[in-house]
Amino acid sequence: MDDLERARRCGEQMWINDKASQALGIEVDIPEAGAAVATMLIREDMVNGFGVCHGGLLVALADTAFAFACNAYNDVTLASAVQAEFLRPAQRGDVLSAIAREEYRGRKTGYYTIRIVNQDKELVSLFRGRSAATGEALLPAQK
Amino acid sequence: MDDLERARRCGEQMWINDKASQALGIEVDIPEAGAAVATMLIREDMVNGFGVCHGGLLVALADTAFAFACNAYNDVTLASAVQAEFLRPAQRGDVLSAIAREEYRGRKTGYYTIRIVNQDKELVSLFRGRSAATGEALLPAQK
Amino acid sequence: MDDLERARRCGEQMWINDKASQALGIEVDIPEAGAAVATMLIREDMVNGFGVCHGGLLVALADTAFAFACNAYNDVTLASAVQAEFLRPAQRGDVLSAIAREEYRGRKTGYYTIRIVNQDKELVSLFRGRSAATGEALLPAQK
Amino acid sequence: MDDLERARRCGEQMWINDKASQALGIEVDIPEAGAAVATMLIREDMVNGFGVCHGGLLVALADTAFAFACNAYNDVTLASAVQAEFLRPAQRGDVLSAIAREEYRGRKTGYYTIRIVNQDKELVSLFRGRSAATGEALLPAQK
Repeated sequence: MDDLERARRCGEQMWINDKASQALGIEVDIPEAGAAVATMLIREDMVNGFGVCHGGLLVALADTAFAFACNAYNDVTLASAVQAEFLRPAQRGDVLSAIAREEYRGRKTGYYTIRIVNQDKELVSLFRGRSAATGEALLPAQK
Repeated sequence: MDDLERARRCGEQMWINDKASQALGIEVDIPEAGAAVATMLIREDMVNGFGVCHGGLLVALADTAFAFACNAYNDVTLASAVQAEFLRPAQRGDVLSAIAREEYRGRKTGYYTIRIVNQDKELVSLFRGRSAATGEALLPAQK
Repeated sequence: MDDLERARRCGEQMWINDKASQALGIEVDIPEAGAAVATMLIREDMVNGFGVCHGGLLVALADTAFAFACNAYNDVTLASAVQAEFLRPAQRGDVLSAIAREEYRGRKTGYYTIRIVNQDKELVSLFRGRSAATGEALLPAQK
Repeated sequence: MDDLERARRCGEQMWINDKASQALGIEVDIPEAGAAVATMLIREDMVNGFGVCHGGLLVALADTAFAFACNAYNDVTLASAVQAEFLRPAQRGDVLSAIAREEYRGRKTGYYTIRIVNQDKELVSLFRGRSAATGEALLPAQK
């Protein structure tokens, strides 16, 4: 099993239980180990009191991309911190893509940069996530 | 209209359009101007690939408390950044409270601290939010 | 030895070796366990390319207050992260005070808020620090 | 004047007044517009109460690299926020390099990633800086 195949199997394993990302209509692609792209359509039930996408749901999209990027190594890895910068509001009907890439990965701690862009490739939000690996296997043991 | 009354009217005005917070089952209370408490039950559709509350939805809860705290002054105010620290996982069935308080408020920029605690008063997450006031009135003009 | 006395002894122990804070002319006071106030005069050799206090030296002042606040418990504790917001420039000749207070302290991880104000009590910078306790004693063993 | 030449002239202009970076023994190189490398030897007067490099001075090094990276465009640009993660202590005698690169640059706001590595190319600290352009010219007007 090569790196990309392992990353994708980890992603499939997580996806089964990830009811939150499913409920938000998020789709995830893993282009390489340590990276992920998550896309989401801003629905009517995702806008805040000012009629633009709720900031927390932007973070949810980024966090999903982050989780699938940092869980590529068959080692259950949790988000321990996220820093979000909101540059531009997203509107209902926008299709957003969160692109996560690995900035650094140590034995336990990793750092990821996540950018959210809209359908016009404009930067909507910029994130950094810090991950903590637990040392537990993510994939079921091979028979 | 005193400060608390104005803060609560601003909250009511925002709540009407805040479909995202409504869809997440969040309830908001405004104990004083510049503060807010948002509560949320972790539902089955809120868990991530590891069966605990999706980090982005913790941020959504915190972000709602933050929005209602910083929009107390009849001046439309947006979140420009949020920093989240995840200390303890939240489980399905947990009832979380996000408590936002004002750390500093300048002419345009404000900083808020938001703590999420669970039903056992344990700290789940700690946030700081930076807000940017737009200068636009939030409440409809008085007749 | 009560909490405050222990905090101050820890501070004295650290101060002996803290050549950086000494070289910056910083003075530290510990009003209670988990808190610290560090003061610094902005000298001619502390200004940056625009003639105002170098941002890194503001962080150095805040970091000193943070270190003396989080090392109150006879448990060697290191800064693992700092987030700084620069609100107002500081000028040569200003006397700045960094006031650190404990926001949360768990078994290993702690969070501290540090505010820097100038001699006119205006907020210059706002920080959050995350600390990591090592479990090693800071004070020499009692005879 | 091409982009790199302009960036370097901006750097020279800033350097003249940057007494803080000079006092810290920092040297700066500008490999391209929007990037900068700052190097610093950890001196005896840079260690903290635990005998390792004071965290604030790591931030000072990163902040210098950040300032020279974001001031490449003849538009006086200030740091408005910095987030620092401390991964590994630096020792007296270490030679550190802070490498700043542009993550995003809008009309007013920019984001920069800064990595500090030691002489063994190990990652010591990781930063993100947010910059705010003022719209004022940095270079003296051409005759």
